[in-house]
Amino acid sequence: MDVDAVVNLVERIGLETVLTEMAGYVEEDYQRWGAFEKSPRLASHSADGVIELMPTSDGEAFAFKYVNGHPTNVALGLQTVVGFGVLASVRTGYPELIAEMTITTALRTAATSAMAARHLARDDAATMAIIGLGAQSEFQAHAFRAVLGVRRLRVYDVDPAATRKFITNMQGRGFEIFVAASASEAVMGADIITTVTADKAQNHILSDNMVGAGVHLNAVGGDCPGKTELQADILRRGEVFVEFAPQTRIEGEIQQLEPDFPVTELWRVVSGQAPGRRGADQITIFDSVGFAIEDFSALRYLRDRMLEAGDGARLNLLASPEDPRDLFGLLTARERLAAPVAV
Amino acid sequence: MDVDAVVNLVERIGLETVLTEMAGYVEEDYQRWGAFEKSPRLASHSADGVIELMPTSDGEAFAFKYVNGHPTNVALGLQTVVGFGVLASVRTGYPELIAEMTITTALRTAATSAMAARHLARDDAATMAIIGLGAQSEFQAHAFRAVLGVRRLRVYDVDPAATRKFITNMQGRGFEIFVAASASEAVMGADIITTVTADKAQNHILSDNMVGAGVHLNAVGGDCPGKTELQADILRRGEVFVEFAPQTRIEGEIQQLEPDFPVTELWRVVSGQAPGRRGADQITIFDSVGFAIEDFSALRYLRDRMLEAGDGARLNLLASPEDPRDLFGLLTARERLAAPVAV
Repeated sequence: MDVDAVVNLVERIGLETVLTEMAGYVEEDYQRWGAFEKSPRLASHSADGVIELMPTSDGEAFAFKYVNGHPTNVALGLQTVVGFGVLASVRTGYPELIAEMTITTALRTAATSAMAARHLARDDAATMAIIGLGAQSEFQAHAFRAVLGVRRLRVYDVDPAATRKFITNMQGRGFEIFVAASASEAVMGADIITTVTADKAQNHILSDNMVGAGVHLNAVGGDCPGKTELQADILRRGEVFVEFAPQTRIEGEIQQLEPDFPVTELWRVVSGQAPGRRGADQITIFDSVGFAIEDFSALRYLRDRMLEAGDGARLNLLASPEDPRDLFGLLTARERLAAPVAV
Repeated sequence: MDVDAVVNLVERIGLETVLTEMAGYVEEDYQRWGAFEKSPRLASHSADGVIELMPTSDGEAFAFKYVNGHPTNVALGLQTVVGFGVLASVRTGYPELIAEMTITTALRTAATSAMAARHLARDDAATMAIIGLGAQSEFQAHAFRAVLGVRRLRVYDVDPAATRKFITNMQGRGFEIFVAASASEAVMGADIITTVTADKAQNHILSDNMVGAGVHLNAVGGDCPGKTELQADILRRGEVFVEFAPQTRIEGEIQQLEPDFPVTELWRVVSGQAPGRRGADQITIFDSVGFAIEDFSALRYLRDRMLEAGDGARLNLLASPEDPRDLFGLLTARERLAAPVAV
């Protein structure tokens, strides 16, 4: 499934239905967390960046994501991060799907955030603040409306161009949007705060006094070493939920804290092994960095929907001679067809 | 490049030119062996088989091959091994090529064999025996003619159907072929012996007394634990050359021998750091199991030739919004285009 096929699928099914269904797939995979083989990612570092292969398997399907990270690409007019994913059958070893993973990663990140918030935010949450109006912001807004019914947004970005882009994209989509003049104005009265800024630095987009009782914090932007968004005190005031603790301690907001700072892995909440929100006044924080199982869920979702409706194209990547010993025949078949025929 | 694109490329350039040029690419990469990052392969094992990702990089290009091994596939009417490869730019992290790796692996295996023989066989070698007439046999024959000028073949397979397939495929291709009634008849008078049987067992296709002085043995078929073709004594009588010793000691013919049996890595010969053949009477053995750098060379070759002539198709796998922050715009672009226009 290339970019067009994924865009087609979203048009056909509807963005919010896709986000809701994908959140369901992620939740299903979180519920059977123990079934997954969590291999270490394979990273090839160079002066300019890194190329990674991130594999996982649930015993039925094997998936991996190819993804790079090249900050220097901006100067070349290229994207910093691109990627694609592959899903294969464990039973046969045959690859079943190759898919773009740029739009798909945006979808799965938003779906995961909303799925987490369904377990962690207050049931009556109706207003979300979004700090950072970059590539992920519209996806977050749609996922939270689709999964939690949140339609009131209070938004802020330091860059007015990003704000204009967001407002243009969201026009006529049925949201009630308040554009704030600062992050502190944006979070006023919000039940959920999503931080999704792009700046690669130790930032304090939110300071402790900005976050009131009962808020759910969906911290998406702090996702690699050296990149954080929250003041450490906020993390200590609430309960922190993570995808996979060893990875989040390196990449997430909690990189600012001591290595044994207590956190709860979200899969334990989703599978009923740990409580989520403990009361209306608690501050809950989802410190999200993105995890291989979410890519797996997203690829599994694309494959199932693709099979239903024939989105995407078939690739002839696997030579399959009628006689497996006659690979050479694949090269000469056309010669034989083209041979002169006696009439 | 799918299967058709690779077949087209071979038709356009000519099989023996492709094999010669690919042997050149493999040789070039063997000469700069030290430049390669030799990452361990990543294997995901299951009850039915294994799925592997085999990465390597020379600092300019990053490549990996996806390959499975599922013996149980035969019962399902599927192939035991399928695969595809990816080549990416280390500078930008952008993938540049996704290619089928079934025909391509057959081509690179034959090209590597012939390249090794150019360094290890006698200069006057004119006759090759081929034991095992499965999927790899015709490729070996063409590579040795292209690279070494060998046109006389003495061939044998235990299965008459495999022999018929080989003879049909090779008809009218300018070889002088003698079909032997046994392996020992096939090797009589041969300057080069290629063993390329498929049976997954500890076999002794060749015994010590069948191999005369001065012969070059191209042992291709023994390529995984438990699968060997040669009697151990032959290995002790000659000098054994390997791709990458730690891997060959597990997968190659030398798995039969003590772990410190002396071998020479072929790259040292190719780069002038070790002698190849030491005299007309020496027995040389290339114990070949297939190595990630050969896949790298093959993908690099496909990419270069593809760029020349536009073989293959462009995949739109990397979403590239005009404004990198406006990923959402990719989803809504068509909505905007479809909006009613005032006339």
